[in-house]
Amino acid sequence: MTSTLGIAVVGTGRMGADHVRRIGRTVGGARVVAVADPDGDRVKAVADALDGASAHTDPAAAIAAPGVQAVLIASPGPAHEEAIAHALARQLPVLCEKPLTPDPEGALRVMEAERRLGKRLVQVGFMRRFDAEYVRLKELLDAGGIGRPLFLHCRHRNASSPSFFTSDMLITDSVVHEVDAARWLLGQEVTAVSVLSPRPTSAAPEGLRDPRLVLLETSGGAVVDVEIFVNCGFGYQVRCEAVGESGSAQIGDGHAMVVQSGGRWGGEIDQDFTVRFADAYDRQLRSWVAGAARGRVAGPDAWDGYAAAAVSEAGLTAARSGVRTVVEMAERPALYR
Amino acid sequence: MTSTLGIAVVGTGRMGADHVRRIGRTVGGARVVAVADPDGDRVKAVADALDGASAHTDPAAAIAAPGVQAVLIASPGPAHEEAIAHALARQLPVLCEKPLTPDPEGALRVMEAERRLGKRLVQVGFMRRFDAEYVRLKELLDAGGIGRPLFLHCRHRNASSPSFFTSDMLITDSVVHEVDAARWLLGQEVTAVSVLSPRPTSAAPEGLRDPRLVLLETSGGAVVDVEIFVNCGFGYQVRCEAVGESGSAQIGDGHAMVVQSGGRWGGEIDQDFTVRFADAYDRQLRSWVAGAARGRVAGPDAWDGYAAAAVSEAGLTAARSGVRTVVEMAERPALYR
Amino acid sequence: MTSTLGIAVVGTGRMGADHVRRIGRTVGGARVVAVADPDGDRVKAVADALDGASAHTDPAAAIAAPGVQAVLIASPGPAHEEAIAHALARQLPVLCEKPLTPDPEGALRVMEAERRLGKRLVQVGFMRRFDAEYVRLKELLDAGGIGRPLFLHCRHRNASSPSFFTSDMLITDSVVHEVDAARWLLGQEVTAVSVLSPRPTSAAPEGLRDPRLVLLETSGGAVVDVEIFVNCGFGYQVRCEAVGESGSAQIGDGHAMVVQSGGRWGGEIDQDFTVRFADAYDRQLRSWVAGAARGRVAGPDAWDGYAAAAVSEAGLTAARSGVRTVVEMAERPALYR
Amino acid sequence: MTSTLGIAVVGTGRMGADHVRRIGRTVGGARVVAVADPDGDRVKAVADALDGASAHTDPAAAIAAPGVQAVLIASPGPAHEEAIAHALARQLPVLCEKPLTPDPEGALRVMEAERRLGKRLVQVGFMRRFDAEYVRLKELLDAGGIGRPLFLHCRHRNASSPSFFTSDMLITDSVVHEVDAARWLLGQEVTAVSVLSPRPTSAAPEGLRDPRLVLLETSGGAVVDVEIFVNCGFGYQVRCEAVGESGSAQIGDGHAMVVQSGGRWGGEIDQDFTVRFADAYDRQLRSWVAGAARGRVAGPDAWDGYAAAAVSEAGLTAARSGVRTVVEMAERPALYR
Repeated sequence: MTSTLGIAVVGTGRMGADHVRRIGRTVGGARVVAVADPDGDRVKAVADALDGASAHTDPAAAIAAPGVQAVLIASPGPAHEEAIAHALARQLPVLCEKPLTPDPEGALRVMEAERRLGKRLVQVGFMRRFDAEYVRLKELLDAGGIGRPLFLHCRHRNASSPSFFTSDMLITDSVVHEVDAARWLLGQEVTAVSVLSPRPTSAAPEGLRDPRLVLLETSGGAVVDVEIFVNCGFGYQVRCEAVGESGSAQIGDGHAMVVQSGGRWGGEIDQDFTVRFADAYDRQLRSWVAGAARGRVAGPDAWDGYAAAAVSEAGLTAARSGVRTVVEMAERPALYR
Repeated sequence: MTSTLGIAVVGTGRMGADHVRRIGRTVGGARVVAVADPDGDRVKAVADALDGASAHTDPAAAIAAPGVQAVLIASPGPAHEEAIAHALARQLPVLCEKPLTPDPEGALRVMEAERRLGKRLVQVGFMRRFDAEYVRLKELLDAGGIGRPLFLHCRHRNASSPSFFTSDMLITDSVVHEVDAARWLLGQEVTAVSVLSPRPTSAAPEGLRDPRLVLLETSGGAVVDVEIFVNCGFGYQVRCEAVGESGSAQIGDGHAMVVQSGGRWGGEIDQDFTVRFADAYDRQLRSWVAGAARGRVAGPDAWDGYAAAAVSEAGLTAARSGVRTVVEMAERPALYR
Repeated sequence: MTSTLGIAVVGTGRMGADHVRRIGRTVGGARVVAVADPDGDRVKAVADALDGASAHTDPAAAIAAPGVQAVLIASPGPAHEEAIAHALARQLPVLCEKPLTPDPEGALRVMEAERRLGKRLVQVGFMRRFDAEYVRLKELLDAGGIGRPLFLHCRHRNASSPSFFTSDMLITDSVVHEVDAARWLLGQEVTAVSVLSPRPTSAAPEGLRDPRLVLLETSGGAVVDVEIFVNCGFGYQVRCEAVGESGSAQIGDGHAMVVQSGGRWGGEIDQDFTVRFADAYDRQLRSWVAGAARGRVAGPDAWDGYAAAAVSEAGLTAARSGVRTVVEMAERPALYR
Repeated sequence: MTSTLGIAVVGTGRMGADHVRRIGRTVGGARVVAVADPDGDRVKAVADALDGASAHTDPAAAIAAPGVQAVLIASPGPAHEEAIAHALARQLPVLCEKPLTPDPEGALRVMEAERRLGKRLVQVGFMRRFDAEYVRLKELLDAGGIGRPLFLHCRHRNASSPSFFTSDMLITDSVVHEVDAARWLLGQEVTAVSVLSPRPTSAAPEGLRDPRLVLLETSGGAVVDVEIFVNCGFGYQVRCEAVGESGSAQIGDGHAMVVQSGGRWGGEIDQDFTVRFADAYDRQLRSWVAGAARGRVAGPDAWDGYAAAAVSEAGLTAARSGVRTVVEMAERPALYR
């Protein structure tokens, strides 16, 4: 039994607008029913592009709008705590972009509110936990595939940093992703932090301490090193190599996880076309649905089906006879040109 | 303005059931409203798991059911032509699994029906055209990135073939994907076919000519070689190397496209986190929506948000002081254990 | 017991001059004692750069020169047969650049001469059999690591062809390497040949049929396809993928052999520094010997030894104390700047 | 003008014996004329396998032996200083295995001796400077290919450590290679060292602090992190990623250097067969020389030359005719079976 979950989206800046698009295109069984943003024009434009969503400048009003069953918070960090409070007051599930709150104290208050309700309703948007490669690495670690973890070597690189970026934000906005990933991958807490700073890159704005090497020690005796480099110039790159007592595993190099153990390096081969082409099937359906809504065929058409059948027929003749076989084809009708 | 497209799914075997699941989970703005299958129990089970979909043993009835705006055909190949005819009679868009029809004559009749309607409504399920790597290769070829294409070297391997697989099906069911991919990538028709057959693998069932090398010549003077090997044992693998006048490009090796040109080999680096983690954001939202529907938090919770904030705070101290800083954390409440 | 083998080099063009250099630099226990070339100036220049080698314009004279114990033939193909005859008359071992002779008849006469001597003395310069990756692939195939071979997929690419290159030479000068490699890797003879020709690349000189796809069938029922492309523009590239009944193995991609079998892809990790750095040790010694002969230190000197010791000492202190330790170093003397 | 350099090898343990073999097989223009080792039987066995080398238990005697023009020292570290003194007394070039001396003071005395001679004669065996990948990385850095260096991320892993290995030796015997490599690559001195120690691997012997993360700061403001892990289990691995202001470059992954810059990752393609097959040509010649010395053909023989010519002939026919051509071959004579 599927029904459609009504979502209020708080904050319609870059991240919020992205989430609205995702819900409409790649998420089945959900729809945005209310949006909130202090910028009244922007929020109205977002709502108008949706089917029957209400626009609000007050987050509380959006959260209280009819049909809202869950709340997605993508407003700036300092606004999170209040929006969460409104959602929790209505016992609605929350997905809150990181950081949960700008400081530990705010997070403790959120936890206290949940404790009073007696249940957890808030999820934090550390999306790496949903990345296919991170999930594989987590599974490998949990299965003991490389033994007890000793090191995580992490690289976190951005082509360039936005103008408002500060030295503090390298830690609180960027490395915070590795902090969560390390805690999750290892199932351990971070117990100490050290920071080493090379001479800053000349590509960094005056005063920005970029790059840095952040070193985390964990409750289980592992060491995590994080290169954070937000003006590396060449692209966006998030890598992680986990080193355990019996092997190592790397992700983030643009291909699937590579494991080293037992004298060999390598990875797994997909066993089935449903795995290899899972995304292609998803995209095919989305493209067809979008095309159908506009009355257009946006993929291979009947001519393509015909051509494939004609070549197959010639292929069978060639296979049976052992000789080169010419393909006989009808002329292409104007409709298919 | 988005609304929800009502879809009839004809055929609820492996492929059809997969499509039903995809529509429910990964496709926004669409829902299955009718399903058809000659197996009455199976079709009823599929419909019961949906919200308000009707079950039919007759494809025509499903296609005529209330709310049907588009038709997805995943029945066996010989049944395609009749189902398409019903859909076209109602001028509904169709997504039809390959093959469009088992022989070229059937496909010609489908084209004739569309000609009478004066528009194309049928899309064929050659899903590789929607695979991210194939799309990149197509874009590269169209942009002249490796010059005029001379060769496509293709590998198409399955771990093992199903019991009903025949020597003919290596051509008509397997190589047909390369036939469509080659036509699409090159924008050319196939003009001749040759087949070379090594001594069959001992892993193939008696009588199955597996593997084979299928050679296609195209209208633009390119040569396509396809290794088809449906009992390779080690996995499912679809590779393609395009060789042009000024370079080559490979896809299907488990990582992004690798291009060779101008004395260098390599690929592109993602420039932005929205690209690198696009799928993670999608999965995060789907997981949260599914969890919210069941009243569960299925991701990082408020404790994780708190821990990240506490480590960030220590990180700032360490960065400013240059010395190792211990992380101070509250005790973990029972709710978050 | 090692002694020094005296070698006559016949032909001092590009290949012959290369061989002379190799013998002097990278081959222990051998020296060139005679060189022959119809170009009297060139052969004299080559001999003068050696220590006590005689120069000849007549190959027979070089082969008969004092101290000659073995003959290396690097003259043009049509001259091979006569030079071999002179060497065999003296029962000297021969290394002859490919082709052994331009046609099969000449080769049959060489074999007849060896038959009369009752022993084999001639080696042909198919150097791929000595390439580390080819050797690994051969070992894997011989050990049954991927089962009975079914296919070899070969790529043979040159950035550009020399001005004198002809369409025939694509077969006789280039593909001939794959012919030998296939025979050697498979331990089978080639029984039939087919050739497919795409429309030639516009980078090829007028009239040159470049590229081509050459298809070999073998006595053991394997199929070998060779892309020969001598004006590919982007570089020199020799690749080979062997596909067997239980796996595949690729070489020539700029890294060690990659094997696919049992659901995994990957390769072996070196187990020892003597393997990983074998070439570095060789080069270090050659560089030192060359430097010593000229009275120069061409590598890390005593200052480098000192600096390493000073940092090691600080490292021990840091490791024991757990705190950052400053390295104390003497001033660098002028001699080491 | 080449002549043969007479070398005394001091120390005939594993490293020394390896060097003796290398000089005999892969180094042209040099020969071992004297060997020294306190183990009289061992040194005699090594000398007996050479042609006319004298055996000594006293290093000074070996260094003073007739024909000695250069000295290679591979004895234990504490014996280096004295052997160097004997060599310097005779003004002979020295190649000394690392460490030059066990402590900085010994190295200062060696430098003082050279200063008195007014020239450098001692080279230290940091062989990584001669590794092809390290050389490429050095060239890239010197050419400014990735801008001013900010980080070196190093991994140094051994499958297992010998029984005598101590926690100190992780620094002085293992990390010392990275110390030299970092100084050489960066052209900077190391100014400070820190060490982080995860909980030791259970594979390490009791009491051995393995693995460790060693952090070096340099005079130019770069940071070097070294994972040293001498019981990693899976193999021997030395990796280095240099990160500069405009890109990064990695070596040690079993393939050629991979560079990231300008939005792309990748490497260079060899431009010529003399590069791609340089090692194969070297090995071919060494193998042929060794075979010739024993009167054996150890490579492709005249039959292989014949078969290649016969297939080439059929290939030409196939290419010209466009049809499959059977290869006609003589029967293989008994001599070539």
